[in-house]
Amino acid sequence: MKIKQTILKISTKNNLQFVDLTNEIEKFVSKSKIKFGQLLVYSRHTTLAIRVNEKETGIFNDMEEFLNKLLPKNRYYRHNDLEIRTENLVCSPETEECLNGHSHCRHFLLSTSETIPIQGGTIALGTWQKVMAVELDGPRKREILLQLIGE
Amino acid sequence: MKIKQTILKISTKNNLQFVDLTNEIEKFVSKSKIKFGQLLVYSRHTTLAIRVNEKETGIFNDMEEFLNKLLPKNRYYRHNDLEIRTENLVCSPETEECLNGHSHCRHFLLSTSETIPIQGGTIALGTWQKVMAVELDGPRKREILLQLIGE
Amino acid sequence: MKIKQTILKISTKNNLQFVDLTNEIEKFVSKSKIKFGQLLVYSRHTTLAIRVNEKETGIFNDMEEFLNKLLPKNRYYRHNDLEIRTENLVCSPETEECLNGHSHCRHFLLSTSETIPIQGGTIALGTWQKVMAVELDGPRKREILLQLIGE
Repeated sequence: MKIKQTILKISTKNNLQFVDLTNEIEKFVSKSKIKFGQLLVYSRHTTLAIRVNEKETGIFNDMEEFLNKLLPKNRYYRHNDLEIRTENLVCSPETEECLNGHSHCRHFLLSTSETIPIQGGTIALGTWQKVMAVELDGPRKREILLQLIGE
Repeated sequence: MKIKQTILKISTKNNLQFVDLTNEIEKFVSKSKIKFGQLLVYSRHTTLAIRVNEKETGIFNDMEEFLNKLLPKNRYYRHNDLEIRTENLVCSPETEECLNGHSHCRHFLLSTSETIPIQGGTIALGTWQKVMAVELDGPRKREILLQLIGE
Repeated sequence: MKIKQTILKISTKNNLQFVDLTNEIEKFVSKSKIKFGQLLVYSRHTTLAIRVNEKETGIFNDMEEFLNKLLPKNRYYRHNDLEIRTENLVCSPETEECLNGHSHCRHFLLSTSETIPIQGGTIALGTWQKVMAVELDGPRKREILLQLIGE
């Protein structure tokens, strides 16, 4: 049994964006020489989610509309209220970098990681499955940790 | 440390359905002879989720009502609009098989897999916990991958 | 490759509450002497979730308000209707202990576990990430299983 790991770096362009990581993940698994095991795809951010779903532009747009309605960016969030907030203050009204209450709430629903099975030296995805990073507070530079345990 | 795997096959009957996998999973773990480890229960589909929760008909009906209201089947989805959609087109207005925008959006919220701890040769579930497949686009034939790493 | 495990016990005070487990988890990882591996943080309850997010009071209050609106405690749930419910009846109208339909539905959205990568003998969290138990039906006594596979 072995452990291999790497970091994927991506740059996102929009506030909400779906980034397909599948090709990069396949390269890492192939290089690792591990044939059977479990691959953890882990976001190192509190406003970047990892999800497995179909890669189809209509679905991405449907999800964006749904999230915009469920947790709108411009609603009141205590996390964005610099008159009452006292913790983790690395922002100012000018930068607005930390005024992302909607991103944190959305992230609670969409999760930090997925674990993917490896079989026969490749990721055992179903026909329509792609592994995607879901940017919830872009544009930003992001890091995704891949860690594979197997043999 | 060893790795064991198998595929569970199920046939669902309704558009939304909760299928208890716990007994089948216990049989697999028992056969594996692995005493301590981590079991990945992985759906190979983009409209079938895996969740751990209580098995009680009232909860299933409550969830169905909640999801029907949050993401109704008959709402407009771009994924279902064959006048604008150009990707992954394996359907026609006649089959309607791919007109499942609601299923994909619900799946983003309910997830592709669960990882379950194995202790003393059995799944270490709490009193009320059952491992369930959640069909979001049935009726269909489905495959769930079980992969156990441990010793 | 080794496996180590322990149980964290917590007592919650509110119906909805975020409990930071990060320090207790770090102590367990440090004691385990495992340098690289995957840590499963697993709730043994159907109304206690595990999530990774930022620890900031405003976010917790924003999430509470969001969940209260999305799945209110005092709405009608079949799970709470003792005139139709016949399964898992360990409660009475007096105790109200099982009248927690809102908690189960919220739990479907927030999940049972998170898997965290271990690197260089410590949990590889990003700058703002904390591992939290999310109480959805407190106050209660709760158990969280930590299981680490690695070397």
